[in-house]
Amino acid sequence: MNTATAQQINEQLSELDARLLRLLEDRAALLQQAESSVQEAALRRIKQVQAAVAAQAAAPKKPLLVSRKSKQTDTVIALGETEIGSGKPLLIAGPCSVESREQVREVAAALKQAGITVMRGGAFKPRTSPYEFQGLGVEGLKILKEAADEFGLRIVSEIVDPAHIELACDYVDVIQIGARNMQNFELLKAAGQANVPILLKRGLAATIEEFIYAAEYIASKGNSRIMLIERGIRTYEKATRNTLDISAVPILKQETHLPVLVDVTHSTGRKEIMAPCAKAALAAGADGVMVEVHPNPAEALSDAAQQLNIPQFHRFFEEVKQSGLL
Amino acid sequence: MNTATAQQINEQLSELDARLLRLLEDRAALLQQAESSVQEAALRRIKQVQAAVAAQAAAPKKPLLVSRKSKQTDTVIALGETEIGSGKPLLIAGPCSVESREQVREVAAALKQAGITVMRGGAFKPRTSPYEFQGLGVEGLKILKEAADEFGLRIVSEIVDPAHIELACDYVDVIQIGARNMQNFELLKAAGQANVPILLKRGLAATIEEFIYAAEYIASKGNSRIMLIERGIRTYEKATRNTLDISAVPILKQETHLPVLVDVTHSTGRKEIMAPCAKAALAAGADGVMVEVHPNPAEALSDAAQQLNIPQFHRFFEEVKQSGLL
Amino acid sequence: MNTATAQQINEQLSELDARLLRLLEDRAALLQQAESSVQEAALRRIKQVQAAVAAQAAAPKKPLLVSRKSKQTDTVIALGETEIGSGKPLLIAGPCSVESREQVREVAAALKQAGITVMRGGAFKPRTSPYEFQGLGVEGLKILKEAADEFGLRIVSEIVDPAHIELACDYVDVIQIGARNMQNFELLKAAGQANVPILLKRGLAATIEEFIYAAEYIASKGNSRIMLIERGIRTYEKATRNTLDISAVPILKQETHLPVLVDVTHSTGRKEIMAPCAKAALAAGADGVMVEVHPNPAEALSDAAQQLNIPQFHRFFEEVKQSGLL
Amino acid sequence: MNTATAQQINEQLSELDARLLRLLEDRAALLQQAESSVQEAALRRIKQVQAAVAAQAAAPKKPLLVSRKSKQTDTVIALGETEIGSGKPLLIAGPCSVESREQVREVAAALKQAGITVMRGGAFKPRTSPYEFQGLGVEGLKILKEAADEFGLRIVSEIVDPAHIELACDYVDVIQIGARNMQNFELLKAAGQANVPILLKRGLAATIEEFIYAAEYIASKGNSRIMLIERGIRTYEKATRNTLDISAVPILKQETHLPVLVDVTHSTGRKEIMAPCAKAALAAGADGVMVEVHPNPAEALSDAAQQLNIPQFHRFFEEVKQSGLL
Repeated sequence: MNTATAQQINEQLSELDARLLRLLEDRAALLQQAESSVQEAALRRIKQVQAAVAAQAAAPKKPLLVSRKSKQTDTVIALGETEIGSGKPLLIAGPCSVESREQVREVAAALKQAGITVMRGGAFKPRTSPYEFQGLGVEGLKILKEAADEFGLRIVSEIVDPAHIELACDYVDVIQIGARNMQNFELLKAAGQANVPILLKRGLAATIEEFIYAAEYIASKGNSRIMLIERGIRTYEKATRNTLDISAVPILKQETHLPVLVDVTHSTGRKEIMAPCAKAALAAGADGVMVEVHPNPAEALSDAAQQLNIPQFHRFFEEVKQSGLL
Repeated sequence: MNTATAQQINEQLSELDARLLRLLEDRAALLQQAESSVQEAALRRIKQVQAAVAAQAAAPKKPLLVSRKSKQTDTVIALGETEIGSGKPLLIAGPCSVESREQVREVAAALKQAGITVMRGGAFKPRTSPYEFQGLGVEGLKILKEAADEFGLRIVSEIVDPAHIELACDYVDVIQIGARNMQNFELLKAAGQANVPILLKRGLAATIEEFIYAAEYIASKGNSRIMLIERGIRTYEKATRNTLDISAVPILKQETHLPVLVDVTHSTGRKEIMAPCAKAALAAGADGVMVEVHPNPAEALSDAAQQLNIPQFHRFFEEVKQSGLL
Repeated sequence: MNTATAQQINEQLSELDARLLRLLEDRAALLQQAESSVQEAALRRIKQVQAAVAAQAAAPKKPLLVSRKSKQTDTVIALGETEIGSGKPLLIAGPCSVESREQVREVAAALKQAGITVMRGGAFKPRTSPYEFQGLGVEGLKILKEAADEFGLRIVSEIVDPAHIELACDYVDVIQIGARNMQNFELLKAAGQANVPILLKRGLAATIEEFIYAAEYIASKGNSRIMLIERGIRTYEKATRNTLDISAVPILKQETHLPVLVDVTHSTGRKEIMAPCAKAALAAGADGVMVEVHPNPAEALSDAAQQLNIPQFHRFFEEVKQSGLL
Repeated sequence: MNTATAQQINEQLSELDARLLRLLEDRAALLQQAESSVQEAALRRIKQVQAAVAAQAAAPKKPLLVSRKSKQTDTVIALGETEIGSGKPLLIAGPCSVESREQVREVAAALKQAGITVMRGGAFKPRTSPYEFQGLGVEGLKILKEAADEFGLRIVSEIVDPAHIELACDYVDVIQIGARNMQNFELLKAAGQANVPILLKRGLAATIEEFIYAAEYIASKGNSRIMLIERGIRTYEKATRNTLDISAVPILKQETHLPVLVDVTHSTGRKEIMAPCAKAALAAGADGVMVEVHPNPAEALSDAAQQLNIPQFHRFFEEVKQSGLL
């Protein structure tokens, strides 16, 4: 488009906007003189005008990179032979924290036996208190990598410091950005330069819109291999640890082209409802489910109460598979 | 039990409680002298004590009438040949408000054609503003009854005044208590004396515990034919009208013996995600789903934006049925 | 206005609305061709249009009766010589529930001594469980009336059933509508026909807008002597029983002409912060504060933990008075 | 303490805990046989036991560094001659973002004239979208420093990257950690090594407990010059941008020894209620208030709607001062 035309369009738009404002002033004056029944009808009509204006006001100049308006087809993320987002949902499982080589090997063996291909495990743990177990750090990543190699699994692990992103790529197949860091924009930007896929958790009280923009931070730096994971939001309800926002699944599937997963451990915090919630997630269209499993939850160094032990995990997995949804 | 024994038990309990308190005082004194590592171990042990105490403190003297501890088997509510809670889920549909005979007949015919057996429709409408359409009242109930008779449907309709409960039983098959009235205890008590089943909606910001107690108000007055319906809770998220609390479904199924339904209209307020959310509800174990349908939503006198029109309803129903969950 | 003119205005408005819609279509077409920088400028301008449209869409045809647009001057409610809303703030105090003649007399004597003129006390208690103490009912109202007469106090008490409103007017000076009944519209309508002032509590999760509309239900039935009372809203925070929404005070004062109070007992549920919160309420412009006081909170039949005993009450009152705000 | 004794205490505690558990088992057995009235009384007594146990379970081994249990006296933070936390509250004001030298000088001059000594201004801006203005960065810090030197002000500015903390100390007098970064633990740890005071904002949906622990992260790394600032929490209410949690002020003052401030701009987002909310904050015990001011809010590059212009700021300041609370 040449500049002359651009300027013409600009002028036409400016003039048109001025006319809109004048018309609205006239309308306000007329409205004041009108009777109730006329005002009522006018109110119904203005709602249509309002919708049309909102559409133009809301429309970002360009659709976001993660938006389905930018890319119609589903993004599929390959982890070895596992494809996430391809229509065949997966289960990701593993311990909350990496505590020891034995613990990780025991879980990895159980996952392998169940046919699971992707294991999660935390080496860097963001904890509410500075005096709680903060994870084994790089040592934890090494333990994960060893177990992954031994059992042929792929690894997801959380990174909390922009400076660790590059290092992490040597050990893990997917970098997780945790809920507390969903708007740690420096970390998001660093993740956008990583050469591995990112699993982005929704913040504790993030809106769906903010969640999508957080993904856009990553995409805008060049990494479009992003998975979104709903993990429950903070509400007044205390029967569950958080409130699983199941509606987020179809909304995110419709508004973005990214794979969408659901973490049934952190969203519910209650073992006895994890299987029904996993089925709900899959029925709502999720591409996968994440769940925590620990050889001995009672001794876990973090979040003991909500981790399945290995037999519980097998029962959970059976129940979900029997639904035919996984 | 004779009184002597009762008194003895009372004395034993009193004495035992006094010993517990003394032991705890001793413990506090010891704890102060202990080293960090000892304190740490003591902290882990006291959590077990805490759980044991909590169990005794939380335990209501008698389980609630609606609790599964009172009755192991699922309560099944028969509406003609339809059985709610029997394992075969149902769909309840109909307009938000009854507006005219024609409107109700048109919806009833569509439901009949689709094989739906239970229709909802509002005759008394609790509205935020006193100047909004408040429903046709008894005239609305009569319109519902006529359409029900003509098309062989059962009727669910909301009642808002304790004084109307008796009258309503002449016209409707199920009385709905709306979300805003979930803790209108006078209405709950009146519903407890009705001879029809009650569909109790969860309050806008009610906890699951409060919801169960609201059902108990009804049951305690003699009416145990109660269905619970999750309809979304109020949270900070504005992408949906409310936040569908999917976890409430398995929790309510586990903690009570009552049928549990999900209202996908009020929980989401977004047509494009109603089918996935209905599937999620059923996968989570819901006994049924409720959805609003209107011949011409754009002209609806209430909640126009969230009501499906008849072709949209058919598509919604097809999509849910195809999942095999309905 | 004669009908000819009314119809002309209607036609002019209809035509004008059609022009607005056509202009917006043209604008959308132009916008699509425009360059980013032009779109950016257009976006800023459309926000102005949006505001103008919103003003016309939001504007109710007539301002609400409770709105300051309907009545500029503050509504002042006289209870004997006490005037609420006149600029001199007051303290309302009393027990959560009426339990016995002695209990009420003891509190009344303490209030009298402190110079308090209005006492609260619950005779009908809406309780979460049907098995909790539900109040003494009419007997409780009689006890309140006797104590009021003896000590020269005015009485506020909650009514929960529309059928009791008339009866209550014989015993109490102000009828309270509780938080759980804020949208019990049948009760609001009955209160609108009472000949005593109404103290309307904000619902547990009511928006300020819903709260104002609930007051309008009362006003629309003819009773404009309404006091609004903020009592905390339900949020994720558990350090307090509810979250005192202090911003509601200036907003309600600006948007309505009604007196606005703050209940520091139910909003905080923590004795040690009731005095600072009462001071905050008054500094924010509240016309009064309500607090619960009980001769022996440990034995109270309801809400024991959050009721001040009489010495605590005196200290609370002293601390608030010393601020000069009361 | 010698190890023998330590071990003895450990054994005594272990034994004592075992006795507690056995007693509780006996109690459960007795309880089952007891009559309702006996159970009722037992329930009341067990609540006392529960409180005693909770006290021991909740008690961290050592009180936190930021807790008033560690340090009784108020922490006072000196910025030049201004002392924060000393009993004389202060007002911090300034633009949301640093946009230009002129803009900052204009605000600084207005603050100077009003007698304000501490100015805020954002050079690094965490923004929801990656395409929004992200601040001028180090250039912005330099502009702030220049204006501060010219007008004799102290500067508060937000840092978002752990790597910038050291650099920032050259330009600013106080480093702000923003709400989105309240649980960015790497940033907190870096702030704990800075040689300037830290202004820590409460997270959007952080509990008071989490807020205190975030401060502890900073203190545990050696920097105890921390100010806490309540800035509104995310709730369902949309009349305000966030909900100012006024109760947090007295709770934080009681539970920690740190200065507590309130940001009336982000908590309310409504200019017309900022003065009453500032007065409420001070009446509740806040050590200061923060407010945003911009020479021309309509052209502000961020958060235009909620920034006071300079005459509005002067009126705000006058209104708050007239209350005698500032």
